[in-house]
Amino acid sequence: MKSPASFAKALERGDRRALSQAITLVESARPDHQEIARELLSIIPVARSETLRIGITGPPGAGKSTLIERLGGKLIEGGEDVAVLTVDPSSQLSGGSILGDKTRMPILSSSDHAFVRPSPSSGVEGGVGRFTREAVMLCEACGFNRVIVETVGVGQSELRVAQLTDIFILLLAPAAGDELQGIKRGVMELADLIFVTKCDGDLVDAAHRAVGESLAGTGLMQPRIPGWTVPVIATSALHDIGIDQATTEINRCHDVLMLNNELESRRKHQLKSALMQALHDGLFDEFMADPEVLVRVNQASDQVAKRQLTPSFAAKQLLQSFLKENREAP
Amino acid sequence: MKSPASFAKALERGDRRALSQAITLVESARPDHQEIARELLSIIPVARSETLRIGITGPPGAGKSTLIERLGGKLIEGGEDVAVLTVDPSSQLSGGSILGDKTRMPILSSSDHAFVRPSPSSGVEGGVGRFTREAVMLCEACGFNRVIVETVGVGQSELRVAQLTDIFILLLAPAAGDELQGIKRGVMELADLIFVTKCDGDLVDAAHRAVGESLAGTGLMQPRIPGWTVPVIATSALHDIGIDQATTEINRCHDVLMLNNELESRRKHQLKSALMQALHDGLFDEFMADPEVLVRVNQASDQVAKRQLTPSFAAKQLLQSFLKENREAP
Repeated sequence: MKSPASFAKALERGDRRALSQAITLVESARPDHQEIARELLSIIPVARSETLRIGITGPPGAGKSTLIERLGGKLIEGGEDVAVLTVDPSSQLSGGSILGDKTRMPILSSSDHAFVRPSPSSGVEGGVGRFTREAVMLCEACGFNRVIVETVGVGQSELRVAQLTDIFILLLAPAAGDELQGIKRGVMELADLIFVTKCDGDLVDAAHRAVGESLAGTGLMQPRIPGWTVPVIATSALHDIGIDQATTEINRCHDVLMLNNELESRRKHQLKSALMQALHDGLFDEFMADPEVLVRVNQASDQVAKRQLTPSFAAKQLLQSFLKENREAP
Repeated sequence: MKSPASFAKALERGDRRALSQAITLVESARPDHQEIARELLSIIPVARSETLRIGITGPPGAGKSTLIERLGGKLIEGGEDVAVLTVDPSSQLSGGSILGDKTRMPILSSSDHAFVRPSPSSGVEGGVGRFTREAVMLCEACGFNRVIVETVGVGQSELRVAQLTDIFILLLAPAAGDELQGIKRGVMELADLIFVTKCDGDLVDAAHRAVGESLAGTGLMQPRIPGWTVPVIATSALHDIGIDQATTEINRCHDVLMLNNELESRRKHQLKSALMQALHDGLFDEFMADPEVLVRVNQASDQVAKRQLTPSFAAKQLLQSFLKENREAP
C-alpha cells in the first residue's frame, strides 16, 4: 500500500491507477484505509477556479451516458481533461445496473484525457454519494479540470449532486406534456442548463415540443445564478446536433460564475453542506457503535415488534435518555 | 381541535375528514400536534392480517396514476376499501409536481370506497416518507383494508416504501432493452409482482418484449416470499387489459403471505425498520437542537468554508467530542 505522500505524488503526475486506488480507499469502510484517505485528502492541493464541477441528471432512458460521451468528447477537443463519476441511488440496494456500467461510455473509457468511474458497488456504507465529494477532489488533484458527476433518476440524489457541483444540468427526453409531470419543480429549479436529448428521427418534433415546455417551465422560476438565463437546447448525440452549443453554454456558465464570484460562493456552500452531510451520516453510525446503546436499541426493537411500544415513541425515548445523559455531562 | 379519543372514534366511524386531519397532525412539526398524533396512534387498533399494504413504484411516465386508478377500481368492485398515499422524494426540494397531484386519480378521488392523499407539500421535515407509516395506520383505523403507497422514480424511496408495505409492485413502461438499465437489480429484487403498463396501440409489441426481459431478469433472482414466483403481467389501463389478472395476483400474493405466516414476519420487520428510521431521522434533529452543539457546528462550518478543515475531518472531531462527553457521563 502506498503512503499518502506517494499517492499525492502519483496523482500530481496524473497516474490514473493511483487515482482509482485512491477513490477505492475513500470508499472503503476499513479504518486503515480511511486513515490513509483522510491524510491524502488533507495534503492534495485545493482546486482552483479554473476547474469546473458539473452535475448532470435526467430520468432513466433519457440517454445520459450517450450525451455525456459526446459532451466529454467536445470538452476534450477543447483541451480539457474530463473525469466522469456516477452517483447511483439504487446501487445501495444490492448492486449495480443490470447491464453493467463499464461499457456505457466506450469512447471516454479509452481516451487519454478522460477517466470514467462507475458507481461504487454494493457494500459501501452510507447515503447517496457519501464519498463523491472526496472522489471529485482526487480527480482534480490528478489533473482533471472538468469533473462530471452523473446521477440517475428523479429523487433525492439530485439535491446531493447539486450540493457538490458548480453547475447543474438537467437532461430531458422528448416527451408529451403529461410526462413532464415526472420532473418535479424542485429539480427544474436546480438546473443551470437544460438539454433535451434524442432530437433526431421520429422524435424531432417531440424534442422541440419538450424545449418549448421546458422554456415555459423555467420562465416561471428564479435562476440560481444572478444574471444568468437557463438555456434550453435540443441535442442529438447520434447526429451531433446541439452538442457544440451545449459545450459553449457550459463554458459560458463557468465564465459567468467566475465573473461575479459566484463560483467561490458555491464552493463554500459545497464545503458547508459536506460538513452537514458528514455529521448526519456519521451521527447514527457513532450512536450505534456504543455497546450500551445497542443493547437498549435491541430491547426496544423487540418491544416494538411485539406491539408493546410504537416505533416513534420508542425512538423518542431512546434519544431522550441518550441525549439527557450527554447534557448532564460536565 | 379534536381530542385523540374523539379522533379515534371518528376514524372508527369511517370519517374521512377526520382521517385527513389526523394525517396532517402526524405530518405537522408543531409539538402540540405531535402530542395529539402520538396519543392517537397509541389508542387506535392494530391492523389485522386481513389488511394489505401495497407498495407500488415505477419510473416517471410509466403511467402509475392511471394504473392505480384501474387497480383501485377493481379492488373496490371486489368489496375492498382502498386508500392511496403518495411518497414523493422530490417534494422535499420545493413543492409538488408541476401539474399537481390532486387531479391525477379522478375516479378514486370521488369514490365512497376510496381515499387519495397526495404527498405532503414542502415544509414537512425529514426524509422520504417519514410519516407514511403512521398515515398507513390511520387509514387502516378508518376502515381502509387495502392501502396503496405509491412512490415515484428510481431512487432511495423504493427501499423505504418496501420497508413499510407487505407487498411491493414494480411498474415498467414498454421500452427497448437498453432502457431497462434504468431499473436497477436492487429494485427488481424488491418486487413481488411486476406489471408492464401501456400494452395497447403501437406499444403492444414493446410491452410483450418488456415482459420477456423482466421474466429473464426475475428468473435470476430469489423471490422474497418462499414458494412465490414473481408474476410479470402486461396491462393496459386504457383498454382494461390485464387488470383483472393483476388484481387476482395481488390477492393470491396476500393469501400466500398469510398462509406461511410471512405477513406477520413482514409486519414485525416493518415495525423494527420504522424504529431504526425514526432513530436515524431523530438523532440529527436532537443533536442540532443543543445550543452548545450548534455553536460548535457553526464555528466548524466557517473553518471548513475557509479550507482550514476538511468537512469529513471536522465532522469526525465534532462527533467524537460530543460522544466522548456522553460516554463519560455517569
